[in-house]
Amino acid sequence: MLNVPSLSNDQIKFLQSIVGDEFVSAKNADLDQHSRDQSFHQAHLPAVVVWPRDTLQVSKVLKFANENLIPVTAWGAGTSIEGNPIPVCGGIVLDVSRMDKILKIYKEDFQVDVQPGIKYKDMNAVLSKQGLFFAPDPGANASIGGMVANNAAGTRTPGYGATRENVLRLEVVMASGEIIRTGTRSVKTSSGYDLVHLFIGSEGTLGVVTEATLKLVPLPEKFSAVVAAFKSVEGATQVVSTVMGSGLRPVALEYVDVNTVKELNTTGEFKLAEHPTLIFEFHSATEAGLEEELDLVEEICSTEGCVSFQRGVGRDERDRLWKMRHHTYEVLVRNNVGTSFVVCDVAAPVSAYPQLIAACNKAMESRGLKTYIVGHAGDGNAHPLIPYTPNDPESYKLANEASGEMVEAALALGGTATGEHGVGIGKRKYMAREHGASLDVMRAIKKTLDPNGILNPEKMI
Amino acid sequence: MLNVPSLSNDQIKFLQSIVGDEFVSAKNADLDQHSRDQSFHQAHLPAVVVWPRDTLQVSKVLKFANENLIPVTAWGAGTSIEGNPIPVCGGIVLDVSRMDKILKIYKEDFQVDVQPGIKYKDMNAVLSKQGLFFAPDPGANASIGGMVANNAAGTRTPGYGATRENVLRLEVVMASGEIIRTGTRSVKTSSGYDLVHLFIGSEGTLGVVTEATLKLVPLPEKFSAVVAAFKSVEGATQVVSTVMGSGLRPVALEYVDVNTVKELNTTGEFKLAEHPTLIFEFHSATEAGLEEELDLVEEICSTEGCVSFQRGVGRDERDRLWKMRHHTYEVLVRNNVGTSFVVCDVAAPVSAYPQLIAACNKAMESRGLKTYIVGHAGDGNAHPLIPYTPNDPESYKLANEASGEMVEAALALGGTATGEHGVGIGKRKYMAREHGASLDVMRAIKKTLDPNGILNPEKMI
Repeated sequence: MLNVPSLSNDQIKFLQSIVGDEFVSAKNADLDQHSRDQSFHQAHLPAVVVWPRDTLQVSKVLKFANENLIPVTAWGAGTSIEGNPIPVCGGIVLDVSRMDKILKIYKEDFQVDVQPGIKYKDMNAVLSKQGLFFAPDPGANASIGGMVANNAAGTRTPGYGATRENVLRLEVVMASGEIIRTGTRSVKTSSGYDLVHLFIGSEGTLGVVTEATLKLVPLPEKFSAVVAAFKSVEGATQVVSTVMGSGLRPVALEYVDVNTVKELNTTGEFKLAEHPTLIFEFHSATEAGLEEELDLVEEICSTEGCVSFQRGVGRDERDRLWKMRHHTYEVLVRNNVGTSFVVCDVAAPVSAYPQLIAACNKAMESRGLKTYIVGHAGDGNAHPLIPYTPNDPESYKLANEASGEMVEAALALGGTATGEHGVGIGKRKYMAREHGASLDVMRAIKKTLDPNGILNPEKMI
Repeated sequence: MLNVPSLSNDQIKFLQSIVGDEFVSAKNADLDQHSRDQSFHQAHLPAVVVWPRDTLQVSKVLKFANENLIPVTAWGAGTSIEGNPIPVCGGIVLDVSRMDKILKIYKEDFQVDVQPGIKYKDMNAVLSKQGLFFAPDPGANASIGGMVANNAAGTRTPGYGATRENVLRLEVVMASGEIIRTGTRSVKTSSGYDLVHLFIGSEGTLGVVTEATLKLVPLPEKFSAVVAAFKSVEGATQVVSTVMGSGLRPVALEYVDVNTVKELNTTGEFKLAEHPTLIFEFHSATEAGLEEELDLVEEICSTEGCVSFQRGVGRDERDRLWKMRHHTYEVLVRNNVGTSFVVCDVAAPVSAYPQLIAACNKAMESRGLKTYIVGHAGDGNAHPLIPYTPNDPESYKLANEASGEMVEAALALGGTATGEHGVGIGKRKYMAREHGASLDVMRAIKKTLDPNGILNPEKMI
């Protein structure tokens, strides 16, 4: 295992010669800032932070690191929550935040070339002037590089897919420093191995993405949001399974459990009925089509003990709703001083969503923990927020046991250990269980593409 | 380079001990039948054909072949058209046609587990009783294994994606005989490297698929087909670019050039206006939504010299239309005795479709060849059918030169050397030009996963 807590003066000088003196730092503040993401995983200082400006600089840094066996962990916005970019073996953190340009917009093809350091919200603000947007929506203002690395998803996956479904082409710097370009702007191709998808979700362990061509979608003409509250958890989660199994295609379908609804109501921004709740969003080319879809959804909800069905939520209200949904975690933290939360991320086939939510609740209740669950229900994804007391190892252990039980339940239901947060540090221990013998194939590919193991070491596999 | 024109008696006996005596054949008729696909590429006899019944038998055959350096080429239905399954190095053809079961239908999740030997039309006939179907539609009755191997696509890709977008999970036997399972029934996952997409489109060069979990879609409630004829090629192809760039989402959007329309009219099955023609299909949850979409399409067509816009084509007429479209090649061959056709397959970004079609026409016209072009226009895919005289090397050379010019044009427009037919034998020569340094990465992965190079050797990369 590589472990490089510090670099020599000569090594630092060499890095400075590549990117410029002011873009290499071993200052405590910079190291500290790049030692943790937004997770509960233990921080670890890198030896040095380097801010490259372009692909060639990334290539030179990697070639140097590879020859000198120095770990390199790429860094986007630091918003991940499984410890994905924590430099656990020290070495270089390669912060791509200076590579934040929109390089080209292909308006007619709904595509854009961008550098990895751009934040997706900033990018979408520019694209909206062309009537377009990049659909994956993880909530936090993640960088595109980070979204590609983790296959980030979020609320709009039922309608538009995760990051994986929305990238056409990548420029990647390999561990050796070699620069490759893979994929095509043609939406259809059967040419060669699909390296684009191999790099997406590989969390910087196979190469560093330095450019991406993304698929965009037109801003919707007609849309509508629905907030539906249910007598029971079972009713709400059964609606998820029934709606998705009926061929209806909401762009977003979120589950918010009653305890989380109560917490959200404390903000006063939105007066939600205090019940297990579903939030739907539909996009449509036509008004009539939209109304017909909402009629069908209302009918399904009514058969499952729906106590409130608020349809036709306007654009402003919709925006406020999503903003609130995206700030759930902050609201919980703010309302519960002295409590932290393990943010779990599991997913199962949608038909098993009722069982998945039941298993998550049981994992918390059986340990005497208060239950909070939100989830991108439309694609079978649940995010239990498991409370624990900071600096209390017993409490932390209990929360992690609950999280482990949820992962086991998801896998038993035919699901996955991580729906969208990636493997990072937190989910490594489940990889053998989930992937069996295919983990050996993953390891063989890692060994081939990064023989010295310098890229984000001790992560994923 | 491996080259195994025949096996010893002991080797054949060993194979018989794995799959049963009657499922190993070195008879001329069997070898001949497995020596060519539906392409113009030169046939090559295998040493032996083996018909395994299950995954374990596939595993044993591969282990034996790997230890004895015998090439293994997997065989589905033999319907590919780039020479993809031609056993150019002899050895074993592994015909999976006995592995043709539907293993499980997950009705609520719109998913199915199948073996690779099942033909997609046969599978869809069974699934239709559940109101579901597998959307990729290559026309010929391909096997699912072959569709996965080639990332097959076809007419419905604008609406539902290619095979790549419709596979969740694979069981694969590696060159060593090791059996792995990769992917998950959860539609969302960020767990480990995306091996599923690595195997899709790898044409049996990285492993042999023995089981697949496919995504299905509900049979559409409302649908409509449109046939639109245009004064000019430019008008028709500009409509393709404008419709796709407007956010409208036809499930299918096909281009048929005037010479092909004339040939199709000889069948008497459908009276098409003899002009450059577009065929659209739209699916919708609602009638009103559908009508509004068709109004927008008609408006766009009218601005580009549309001379006939036949909307609201009924289900029977629609089926006849697609059947005819799928039989274009046979009609051409039947009407032109003494002529063969190189079926080219190129794709570009949709905004460049007018330029792509113009370049394809130019490549044929400048060589004095009659032009025939059909294409899955909605995803920028063109299939020029380039006429040549069989057994006339000069004529064949001319057709291949035209094909090469089309590929160069597609690549220059930001496209790909093969949209859906795969690389096989025919497109290998363009791989370096299309992929540059990333071809080295592909080769390194091939070397890692198939160190002895037994899997479908001398193909793709």
